[in-house]
Amino acid sequence: MRVSDLSRKSGVSVATIKFYLRERLLPTGKPTARNQAEYDDTHLSRLRLVRTLITLGQLRLSSVREVMTAVDTKGLSVQGLCQVVNRALFADQPTATGDDAIEPARMRVDDFIDSLDWLVAPDSPGRSTLANVLAALRRLGSNCDADIFAPYAAAAEELAVHEIVSTPDGPPETVVATTILLEVALVCMRRMAHEHHLALRSAGVIAGNSTRQGDT
Amino acid sequence: MRVSDLSRKSGVSVATIKFYLRERLLPTGKPTARNQAEYDDTHLSRLRLVRTLITLGQLRLSSVREVMTAVDTKGLSVQGLCQVVNRALFADQPTATGDDAIEPARMRVDDFIDSLDWLVAPDSPGRSTLANVLAALRRLGSNCDADIFAPYAAAAEELAVHEIVSTPDGPPETVVATTILLEVALVCMRRMAHEHHLALRSAGVIAGNSTRQGDT
Repeated sequence: MRVSDLSRKSGVSVATIKFYLRERLLPTGKPTARNQAEYDDTHLSRLRLVRTLITLGQLRLSSVREVMTAVDTKGLSVQGLCQVVNRALFADQPTATGDDAIEPARMRVDDFIDSLDWLVAPDSPGRSTLANVLAALRRLGSNCDADIFAPYAAAAEELAVHEIVSTPDGPPETVVATTILLEVALVCMRRMAHEHHLALRSAGVIAGNSTRQGDT
Repeated sequence: MRVSDLSRKSGVSVATIKFYLRERLLPTGKPTARNQAEYDDTHLSRLRLVRTLITLGQLRLSSVREVMTAVDTKGLSVQGLCQVVNRALFADQPTATGDDAIEPARMRVDDFIDSLDWLVAPDSPGRSTLANVLAALRRLGSNCDADIFAPYAAAAEELAVHEIVSTPDGPPETVVATTILLEVALVCMRRMAHEHHLALRSAGVIAGNSTRQGDT
């Protein structure tokens, strides 16, 4: 198919497709004439994946390129692929805020991960993001410690086991897409669950409200 | 304190502080001389909050401004505040991809939310993001339905109850900061839990691996 067909089938504009081609997010088509190339279904599915990672996954172009390189790396394990995806997802997170509070927060986060017995690399970007979160919470007036993350760790572990055990590995494109899309789904669900429980509380339905009213 | 003191205490550069002032993310100081103003601790804590929402929360400037306006609105309920925060968090999500698959996906997502009995507004942006996720999963080759989100909904609800019941409301700044920072923490935990369970699986430790080897 021509680039115009690719555009029509994918809903992505020709200009954007040409941009992705220049940025090497999409492999070039088979040249047929000067300034013309032929594309096939592999281009279409790649285009859909790239588009999804950019719009819903909100990955930067450089991160998408890294993920696509990993997808195309023959023999890369699912573990290796997910490591690339993980790092791409973390690419926008600050690694440090130049703040004295980060160092102690990082130690507390490391102790907390140790207490979970999780196999997480010492340079895994999650550790430093979590340290930034803890430092920010404390700086903003909370006196919490890293164990504030315990319920999140428990929920995350349950979901990870569910995903890894229940999902067949499938082709690397599927692994990438589900890893990223189900994270978006989780975040959506959290926000909607908050909306729901705040609505319940303001209607005076659950115990949280009446208990609080009796406090202080 | 002068702007230079504000910079030193917060670790945010003077240029960035001046940018935030121009963008009305920070209230102006008390003018003391031409081109000089005096700032106090309320400016410092506001600056820390703005900085956190931008760096860790990855909110756009326009979203931060909306959230700050809500924080400063006297008499706004926690529910109202969280609604603003929720919408700010969703601001970067596409509402539609101009795709025929969105409409049926949206209906399936609405049915799914109904089946949960959640009080979620019909125009809550989570619904359309989730519909986009479902449509993307199907477009990328999965034949899943909206019930793929069920374990995420269960986990999210448990965490929301925990947060809303266990956390005293506190000042609006704290509500905003914890809502956003604990979402970052949840996402971090999910990525690290994946790293952990993929490492376990590649070491052949858990059932997921051997079961799969016996399959197909």
